[in-house]
Amino acid sequence: MELVPESEIEKRIHKFQEELQRKGLGGALILKNVNLFYFSGTIQSSALFIPKEKDPILMVFKAIERVKQESPLKNIIPVKGRGQIRKVLRDFELHPQKIGLEMDSLPVNLFLRYQQIFPEFEWVDISEIILRLRMIKTPYEVEQIRKAAQILHHGYMKIKEFIKEGMTELEVDGYLAFLARREGHMGVLRMRSWNQEMTHAHVLSGENGAVVSFLDSPHGGPGNTPAMAQGASFRKIGRNEPIGIDYGVGVNGYVADQFRTLVIGDLEDELKNAHELSVELHHLFLKEAKPGVPCSDLYHHLLRKVQGTGLGGYFNGCGEGKAKFVGHGLGLEIDEYPILAPRFNQILQSGMVIALEPMFVFPEKGIVGLEDDYLVTDNGIERLTITEQKIIRL
Amino acid sequence: MELVPESEIEKRIHKFQEELQRKGLGGALILKNVNLFYFSGTIQSSALFIPKEKDPILMVFKAIERVKQESPLKNIIPVKGRGQIRKVLRDFELHPQKIGLEMDSLPVNLFLRYQQIFPEFEWVDISEIILRLRMIKTPYEVEQIRKAAQILHHGYMKIKEFIKEGMTELEVDGYLAFLARREGHMGVLRMRSWNQEMTHAHVLSGENGAVVSFLDSPHGGPGNTPAMAQGASFRKIGRNEPIGIDYGVGVNGYVADQFRTLVIGDLEDELKNAHELSVELHHLFLKEAKPGVPCSDLYHHLLRKVQGTGLGGYFNGCGEGKAKFVGHGLGLEIDEYPILAPRFNQILQSGMVIALEPMFVFPEKGIVGLEDDYLVTDNGIERLTITEQKIIRL
Repeated sequence: MELVPESEIEKRIHKFQEELQRKGLGGALILKNVNLFYFSGTIQSSALFIPKEKDPILMVFKAIERVKQESPLKNIIPVKGRGQIRKVLRDFELHPQKIGLEMDSLPVNLFLRYQQIFPEFEWVDISEIILRLRMIKTPYEVEQIRKAAQILHHGYMKIKEFIKEGMTELEVDGYLAFLARREGHMGVLRMRSWNQEMTHAHVLSGENGAVVSFLDSPHGGPGNTPAMAQGASFRKIGRNEPIGIDYGVGVNGYVADQFRTLVIGDLEDELKNAHELSVELHHLFLKEAKPGVPCSDLYHHLLRKVQGTGLGGYFNGCGEGKAKFVGHGLGLEIDEYPILAPRFNQILQSGMVIALEPMFVFPEKGIVGLEDDYLVTDNGIERLTITEQKIIRL
Repeated sequence: MELVPESEIEKRIHKFQEELQRKGLGGALILKNVNLFYFSGTIQSSALFIPKEKDPILMVFKAIERVKQESPLKNIIPVKGRGQIRKVLRDFELHPQKIGLEMDSLPVNLFLRYQQIFPEFEWVDISEIILRLRMIKTPYEVEQIRKAAQILHHGYMKIKEFIKEGMTELEVDGYLAFLARREGHMGVLRMRSWNQEMTHAHVLSGENGAVVSFLDSPHGGPGNTPAMAQGASFRKIGRNEPIGIDYGVGVNGYVADQFRTLVIGDLEDELKNAHELSVELHHLFLKEAKPGVPCSDLYHHLLRKVQGTGLGGYFNGCGEGKAKFVGHGLGLEIDEYPILAPRFNQILQSGMVIALEPMFVFPEKGIVGLEDDYLVTDNGIERLTITEQKIIRL
């Protein structure tokens, strides 16, 4: 099993401590699994206190031996419950007053519990600080995304042989799960936003590609129950209709995310033209995106290109389903910063990873386009996903 | 696509309103997807206000047409954001003062936002009320669990033919995903508890069955990365060792959850005896569980049976991995009420569904036992999962 290298954890902690000092915080209590993993290398049940200086303390509720194997942190202390945290801080001669918490995800009841245990503390939201740290990936992190991209590529190549006319979307979806897991997909795709969930793939054939859902994405799909309401259904895949496959895989915590349009037979010209435009938008992105460019500028740039073509009405969804972005960051979660959206003014920086997804959605016909993951570097943009940028013909 | 019947929604709302009145609340704002589904039939992006009397109002942020198809509620109102909720309540002549919220899962930031929008409201936690309502299943709900149990059974029968010596746990896990999805598994297994996650199955061979994880369960498993840290790994399945498969499937929102022990060849006597004891504990449960019996009594009853055998040290985990319960409720989430645990004094009632999982975990050898789902009825206990209660030999 691959562990997070100690040097990675050290860098993350160091940068985070700089932010804590800048904000005048005495420390932060990290509780959410994905952030625990980021700062400690483990998601075992624990609470991580990162003081504004000195070594962090990982207080472990369960699986202490496993934590010691997984985490390179020096201070790993078993505790019986949250009530013991005060004593541990005192033992380490830490007396913070203003403490950061992940208020974007911490449940209210747990927050009230901490307020009760530490009535003298002032709590400050640090969600945004963490998201902005996680936005910039190290070469190690990019390497994990590359590994995930490799599995995705194999998946598209294998599913090409598997899909037959009359097969249900669900069967294709299930086979993609099999292919990914077999190669080491970690089994979940995490999302940061509350109430948002992902199945590991969307397989949307024909008109299903245009079904709107709660999901904050250009495609949703019907699913096969309103209890999930996204992704594959029992619809049978036909000839000469787009089969949109959005496919995600996680390796060592890091996600890669790709979309390809497949077809048995051929597509009508309007859809082929829209797909061609999606390819061109990827090329335009490669040309225009570089450190220093604001995300919102990039969004508008791509949008202008679309508006000149008459396909603007179909761009990134129809009606209520229209997504308000054309790309998003990814890493430990599938909905990270930056966002390529009209009002997201963040400037592109070296180390950002962006999934670009210019899609075209035609009511009653379906979805076409492609999504790829890109790394922003000092020398321009590098593609991390490796599948050829064209319609996959079966 | 099957929708939640109107009569189901009506009953749920009615019972919930009785609880609101009993607690002196003017209403409740339901925001979490799984509870939205329970009370409205949809998980599309929306906020549901349930007043203490009169019809609930579903305020929809996205996918209004889809909501109208999925939800039988009368008042379905599109809104642009949370700021509009006040106007909608006023339009319906609702002037509540004390309002319930799902504080077990609502993120702090969203709570602060509501406090800001409605500074005059008093907010009260209603998580527990909802969990206790959801604890009692209707025949419709039980029917969905039965359908999920059917898919699980097919899975065990098919995987029996698929597993070969030398195959990795991950390959088996992936194939189970394929089998389940193909038959209509909804694609996720939801957990209520914060920071807890499930892959769709645990495939734990040999010593991996004894690997402890953060998961609140008698088994965890290594996974293939500390970023997930549970379930299947690249370990190759061997002869004469237990292959523990915990398998979950969701149909129309409702989960069934089963564990079986499989083996290529044979198991040593100690493990076979422990498996036999697990079967006997299921029989004892069938005999002793009935409406009126406290969950804690049942737990102690089963524990006493184990303590007489010398296998107590291995019961439901070893060391830190020991689970503090022998059974749990399930429904829309996999960790529902009731819990068969030492201090859970809830009395069994007709309509509860319980996954009973008396497991035996042997360090360096693995896990044996079986888990089945049961319905509490006025006439005793009925098993919902259907696979034979014995070791599956390959």
